[in-house]
Amino acid sequence: MAKEKKQVFVQHITARDEDFSQWYTDVVTQTDLMDYTPVRGCMALRPYGNRIWELIHDELDARFKETGHENVAMPMLIPESLLLKEAEHVEGFAPEVAWVTHGGNEQLQERLAIRPTSETMFCTMFSKWVQSWRDLPMKYNQWCSVMRWEKTTRPFLRTSEFWWQEGHTVHALPEEAQEETLLMLDVYREFCSNVLSIPVFSGQKSDKEKFAGARATYSVEAMMQDGKALQAGTTHNFGTNFSEPFEIRYLDKDGTLKYCHETSWGMSTRLIGAVIMTHGDERGLKLPPLIAPFQAVMLPIAAHKGGVMEKCEEAFTSLKAAGIRVKLDDRDNVSPGWKFNEWELKGVPLRIEIGPRDVENGVAACARRDTNEKFTLPLDDLAQKVHEVLEDIQQNMYASADQFKLEHTKDVFGMEELTQQVSCGYARAMWCGERACEDVIKEETGATSRNMPFDQSPIGHTCVCCGKKASKVMYFAKAY
Amino acid sequence: MAKEKKQVFVQHITARDEDFSQWYTDVVTQTDLMDYTPVRGCMALRPYGNRIWELIHDELDARFKETGHENVAMPMLIPESLLLKEAEHVEGFAPEVAWVTHGGNEQLQERLAIRPTSETMFCTMFSKWVQSWRDLPMKYNQWCSVMRWEKTTRPFLRTSEFWWQEGHTVHALPEEAQEETLLMLDVYREFCSNVLSIPVFSGQKSDKEKFAGARATYSVEAMMQDGKALQAGTTHNFGTNFSEPFEIRYLDKDGTLKYCHETSWGMSTRLIGAVIMTHGDERGLKLPPLIAPFQAVMLPIAAHKGGVMEKCEEAFTSLKAAGIRVKLDDRDNVSPGWKFNEWELKGVPLRIEIGPRDVENGVAACARRDTNEKFTLPLDDLAQKVHEVLEDIQQNMYASADQFKLEHTKDVFGMEELTQQVSCGYARAMWCGERACEDVIKEETGATSRNMPFDQSPIGHTCVCCGKKASKVMYFAKAY
Repeated sequence: MAKEKKQVFVQHITARDEDFSQWYTDVVTQTDLMDYTPVRGCMALRPYGNRIWELIHDELDARFKETGHENVAMPMLIPESLLLKEAEHVEGFAPEVAWVTHGGNEQLQERLAIRPTSETMFCTMFSKWVQSWRDLPMKYNQWCSVMRWEKTTRPFLRTSEFWWQEGHTVHALPEEAQEETLLMLDVYREFCSNVLSIPVFSGQKSDKEKFAGARATYSVEAMMQDGKALQAGTTHNFGTNFSEPFEIRYLDKDGTLKYCHETSWGMSTRLIGAVIMTHGDERGLKLPPLIAPFQAVMLPIAAHKGGVMEKCEEAFTSLKAAGIRVKLDDRDNVSPGWKFNEWELKGVPLRIEIGPRDVENGVAACARRDTNEKFTLPLDDLAQKVHEVLEDIQQNMYASADQFKLEHTKDVFGMEELTQQVSCGYARAMWCGERACEDVIKEETGATSRNMPFDQSPIGHTCVCCGKKASKVMYFAKAY
Repeated sequence: MAKEKKQVFVQHITARDEDFSQWYTDVVTQTDLMDYTPVRGCMALRPYGNRIWELIHDELDARFKETGHENVAMPMLIPESLLLKEAEHVEGFAPEVAWVTHGGNEQLQERLAIRPTSETMFCTMFSKWVQSWRDLPMKYNQWCSVMRWEKTTRPFLRTSEFWWQEGHTVHALPEEAQEETLLMLDVYREFCSNVLSIPVFSGQKSDKEKFAGARATYSVEAMMQDGKALQAGTTHNFGTNFSEPFEIRYLDKDGTLKYCHETSWGMSTRLIGAVIMTHGDERGLKLPPLIAPFQAVMLPIAAHKGGVMEKCEEAFTSLKAAGIRVKLDDRDNVSPGWKFNEWELKGVPLRIEIGPRDVENGVAACARRDTNEKFTLPLDDLAQKVHEVLEDIQQNMYASADQFKLEHTKDVFGMEELTQQVSCGYARAMWCGERACEDVIKEETGATSRNMPFDQSPIGHTCVCCGKKASKVMYFAKAY
């Protein structure tokens, strides 16, 4: 019976190696993370998906506060004239802006953009708020949704509206802005590694790939199980690119007015797509414990038998009291087999079953989602043991993903090798630094430059594309 | 010196009894809670104001989760056709909607409203998500900002964009929807009392004053220090008003399709305005400890003297470790007097000073913001004592506000009495239930019906306005 249900339950998930893209769609739509809405390209986050985002929020927000940032909330609308102030910036964003033209029954004198990002609004306010060197640094962040009118969209990966955080900071000195840019990049790297169990490539973007208006952009790039790159977060050093048009100046100790140096950095609901494609398998989602809405699910087996429900509830209470996010699934209208498959599909890290024999033996029968390993834990020390198992799952998921990343990254020295490597992973190559070569590589292989690692020890001396002298080490990959 | 600074610091705050409205504006703009932006009627929440909103969020959200609600995130845009589906609803909101007409360079086929509220979007999704009686109840909430194109705006009280939470729930039975509507009203009442230290009038709105599309609306109404009412939160029972046009039906146990019964309820950044106008005084803000970004501020006195800074840092660390939100103000460019006034202005509940003599005596010199009372606390038990003082401040602020509310509420029996009473507070009166009388009262006194208390013990038998037979007890007041 359980077996039969199982087949019914998972039959809709396409195999990853058959059609990775369809596998992704299957997993996303069958796990109640999100749903499509009547607004083109805009999704709704259902409780399960939204809870993951809340947990991501909590972990990231704690890191932002620890590093001295404060949250603010800015208007969602930006007057067109503000958006036009920084030339590169408007060129990058204007084509994908949603425009408000009417308020009530009146036509507005000036169109208002729904923010695609908030540099121009922050800069407008910073120009009021920053007066003296004593006001600096000013390190702000906001949690909100933004809108980019995308032509083709995919749940979590590219949607017209998405939820994110955007940090915006103002500094007196150029080196302080650079330090902030790299600090937040490292916060992102550490967060991906330790919270999402996703190892990343950390480095600097090429000029072609940098943010519209930035002097330098850095990114953390993750590798999906199809070998493609997903940009998980970016940090930007603006120098004075925005502070000059927006006139953000401070009175320095020497009595003169100086332009400020700014940064911005962001991560979004895209991360949920990254988690799915880094860890998921044919049975569905696989969630790292730190962002799992339920870290463990408890299933009574033969719940009608004496002592089972009592023991389950006792164990459930003790886990909850120990701060473990646990779900007691006491539904009586579906079989245990159905429940197994449903919670596997939803990626719950640990399954805990308690049946009559377990009650007798004083144990719980457990199964790990990451390794499928089955084992028992003593009921009288359950919370402590579950904590240890969850910690181990968190680390093991990182280790597996890191292993995959290593196996799918290769040094390449010519276009043929590059083409082959980016069909299944990342290629590390020497690059001359010319945009022309990036364009050729994109044209011929579909791959883009991802970033330049901080370790720039050369692996050769000639550009992988043009063969001319090259001193830059660059990662190339196809990307989401 | 401190005295002179003090005069400088507070001279901009108008006296409350001179011009309450100007007093409010002075306090709001001088405490760094918010700022005006280039978008008409839209404010920015600065770190201090945003932190208050975060703390309100955390307290409310915990209550929503405890009562079985889950958070979701819906699109910010709503197609015009959806907004039109419920007749009363569209009539209520259409005149104040901001419309998106263009995406990128293309004109949209259908206009999209920036959500003024999300009933129509929730209902659209509920009609997909609700199938069987097993899916019910579905109890969701979202935290977001909404947009209402207001003609005249005031910080926190009425802004075009504001931040809020909106709960939306679906139930099988009418009595379940009614139970939810009253449960959340009571959550709001308890939250106002225990977290904001604001006593409220809890009751049902008249038909005239109910939400566009609701069968019944309930509210919690606070009293500001000018005697005017501020609607702090509302809960609505929709019955099947939305489920019919949106076709939200469930397959019941008896095999038939039935319409669901729905509720919604919301609280917003308006609450920050309520806190300011309930508790503030001539020296500025007065924040209840539970939502104060800093519950205590620690000031070193003669910081250069031996042992002072060490003792301050030690005490600071012990308070932090005990979970108290404390700020150590070690600025050396302003005097202690300046700091006193700045933190008083910002409403920090407790000031803690440590100077050379305090170090010698093993005490800290404290001052309460609510009573201005000064006292010392032993340094070796500081965290525990501070906890107790904060708890006392929280309760005392409630008691003071409750006393004010009692003193400014009066039973009235005729129009003259009513007119006089609503010039300084709430009037409780018998009302015939006719809208015509509400209109006359509004016209003649400027007051509106606020709500009907659950205790409907009659205080008379004739309508305060028309003199006809009356059985309803109603509160009237001028309102924000």
